[in-house]
Amino acid sequence: MSNKPNENSEQPSRRDFFKKAAVSVTALAGTSLFASGASTGKDDPAIMHHPKWGQKLGDPVTKNRYGIPSAYEHNNIRRNTKLLASGNFQASIAVAPIHESEGIITPNGLFFSRSHGGTAHVDPNEYRLMINGLVDKEIVMTLDELKRYPSVTRTHFIECPANGGQEWRGPQFNSLQFAKGFMSSAEWTGVYIKTILEDLGVKKEALWMLAEGSDNSEMGRTVPMDKVWDDAMLVWGQNGEALRPEQGYPVRLLLPGWEGNLCVKWVKRLEFAAEPFYAKEETSKYTDLKPTGKAIQHFYANEVNSTVTHPSPEKPWAGQNIKKGDLLEIQGLAWSGMGTITGVDISLDGGKNYVEASLKGLVLPKSWTRWSYMHVYDGKPLLLTTRAMDDAGYIQPTIDEETSIMGVEAVYHRNAVETWEVTKEGKVNHVQIRS
Amino acid sequence: MSNKPNENSEQPSRRDFFKKAAVSVTALAGTSLFASGASTGKDDPAIMHHPKWGQKLGDPVTKNRYGIPSAYEHNNIRRNTKLLASGNFQASIAVAPIHESEGIITPNGLFFSRSHGGTAHVDPNEYRLMINGLVDKEIVMTLDELKRYPSVTRTHFIECPANGGQEWRGPQFNSLQFAKGFMSSAEWTGVYIKTILEDLGVKKEALWMLAEGSDNSEMGRTVPMDKVWDDAMLVWGQNGEALRPEQGYPVRLLLPGWEGNLCVKWVKRLEFAAEPFYAKEETSKYTDLKPTGKAIQHFYANEVNSTVTHPSPEKPWAGQNIKKGDLLEIQGLAWSGMGTITGVDISLDGGKNYVEASLKGLVLPKSWTRWSYMHVYDGKPLLLTTRAMDDAGYIQPTIDEETSIMGVEAVYHRNAVETWEVTKEGKVNHVQIRS
Repeated sequence: MSNKPNENSEQPSRRDFFKKAAVSVTALAGTSLFASGASTGKDDPAIMHHPKWGQKLGDPVTKNRYGIPSAYEHNNIRRNTKLLASGNFQASIAVAPIHESEGIITPNGLFFSRSHGGTAHVDPNEYRLMINGLVDKEIVMTLDELKRYPSVTRTHFIECPANGGQEWRGPQFNSLQFAKGFMSSAEWTGVYIKTILEDLGVKKEALWMLAEGSDNSEMGRTVPMDKVWDDAMLVWGQNGEALRPEQGYPVRLLLPGWEGNLCVKWVKRLEFAAEPFYAKEETSKYTDLKPTGKAIQHFYANEVNSTVTHPSPEKPWAGQNIKKGDLLEIQGLAWSGMGTITGVDISLDGGKNYVEASLKGLVLPKSWTRWSYMHVYDGKPLLLTTRAMDDAGYIQPTIDEETSIMGVEAVYHRNAVETWEVTKEGKVNHVQIRS
Repeated sequence: MSNKPNENSEQPSRRDFFKKAAVSVTALAGTSLFASGASTGKDDPAIMHHPKWGQKLGDPVTKNRYGIPSAYEHNNIRRNTKLLASGNFQASIAVAPIHESEGIITPNGLFFSRSHGGTAHVDPNEYRLMINGLVDKEIVMTLDELKRYPSVTRTHFIECPANGGQEWRGPQFNSLQFAKGFMSSAEWTGVYIKTILEDLGVKKEALWMLAEGSDNSEMGRTVPMDKVWDDAMLVWGQNGEALRPEQGYPVRLLLPGWEGNLCVKWVKRLEFAAEPFYAKEETSKYTDLKPTGKAIQHFYANEVNSTVTHPSPEKPWAGQNIKKGDLLEIQGLAWSGMGTITGVDISLDGGKNYVEASLKGLVLPKSWTRWSYMHVYDGKPLLLTTRAMDDAGYIQPTIDEETSIMGVEAVYHRNAVETWEVTKEGKVNHVQIRS
């Protein structure tokens, strides 16, 4: 048996756009996608006889045996600033251009990349995975041997817990990419670790799993066995091909919904033990300092969150020649490391009043979920605030709710609602509205 | 409302692998993923202290702002031979390495590419879409204006109807890539054409839609309005970024499940009319010659089909150091342009006896669907034949059933079952077994 979502059931959802926004492209007089008509007419000289179109033979199909984006898309790239670097560009992060994202897949070339010792280049023929500690049969496997286990394919986001973490005191970047681009999403293929453990046998004293990377930082993190038995995977495939080097080629740990740093890349060893390992990256870092001076440890799942992806500071409405009366789609992403998104509310006034947005496309557990809201542009400024809910029962907190517990000294796990201002001219700014 | 498949329901399916193959990694004495133990021991000098691992700082995260595959994956590329070229490499096809595929997404760099006049390079700022003919309001749109319509994201394969079409008389290529790689799959983002028509208004006399490309061949195909009202889309997004030039950047037509050539790339015009247009590519080509001397026209959907992707001639079991008693996963793809895959049967004896394979991961309409079957390697030769079924009620025909109707002069729409021989040494050959 397999899950068989009826994607056609998206249709009612599509119509809901118009219902919920109380507008319809056909039913409302004066409301159209092009209230003032298309900006170019039929006699536009560019049409049909464009001098550059079709006048010469194109490139051979063999030109790029591994294809690349159009040269016109040269701005759709990962970015990095010194602000986000820890002194060098090896222990740093390249953020994803989520303002350009569509659907719930990030192409591998744009997947965000965070590393602690730079991108390692591991020869798959020399790759070995060691599994040791409290297992019945310790083993060292080649990549081919690992891939022989029954595989599974699942769509999940990976998010750095510091996503948005520069902003506890308010927006630092008037940019969606820099404010929220510490995450991406892909279709992953690999093996459940429980499948391997069923094969090797594991001792009942084993309560923790250490995952260790073969990179320069020898990244190490400890995972409780509940997660291992739930849905932890070793993955070698990403969006239908091998992992990219930046994602841990040839094998990384994937803990669906949990902090990206726990999803150890270039993983070379799993050790099972009765106690946590307290590796460097789970004591001095990736812990959350509270106002009491104590820090939260063993805090793994990225909580329910959401953002507007369109319009954005990078792609404002102002650049699109919009006019009053035009019907515009506001859209974005919602995600939860604790389950499935059940709904997204949107406010046009900075969080005073909310209405329900529509979820669109596939809605999968621990996966990016697209939401959408149709808006008739009336030339008035907007304060776009969104809050998502998940089936674990959580809803995004307000800024005051979050800071009353966490203060503003923490780095990780910020998931309070955020606000994007749209000026009457159609520019977009990242602002903080406390409520 | 949105569709909310519970991906956790995949778990029973996973367990079904073991049930259906009547083997379990834990339950059956003598059966293990590594019957003879791992091929490398704990004292392998490569492990833990590999001289190349972690000894120096890796690449900065900024090295590739648009990432590329590992250099070790240099063989995972699209391919083309003169056999498949129509005299030149512009009116030709580059086939996808589906023997390396994972899941149901093809990365954009590996998506198969067929063109009739080469890959066009269209400036998105100069792009125009004309919609004319039997609509209430003829219009010329810019790309920004087109993108303003409410968007939708769906996962579909695109397949050239000639996929497998060299093989009416038997296998021509001992290669999965060349035999079956005229197809790929992606998550597409765009707008339903019915949404545009609801906005512009369409006259009731309109029964056909012409789609015309801006490439050198000015590719043109006519689509019946039933399909337009059903699920025809204009798409600009592929796997989370802009279409690649080879896929029609900036906009292509997508007719889910229908022949790839109908999904006109670099589309510049849609014209609505009362009669079909009978363009060159729907008279002299993309029609199916029957033994009577007459040809089938208006034949659009790619019928239910399947193939084994692992093992394959390119990646045989022989290369994996397998031993008798090892538990191996046979896997592949099934797809139907007419609906959703409901099941896949696999035969180990060339079609005499079939057992049920398991569907794995997401099962979506008009989409690639992964299937899997666990097999205990016993050193005996196999003849792997698969047949898929869809919810439109179709099942793949035998070769005799298909040729009794179509003869062997047709080119397109071949979907008879096919067979892959696995020798006792673990090599894989493409063979024809008539039944």
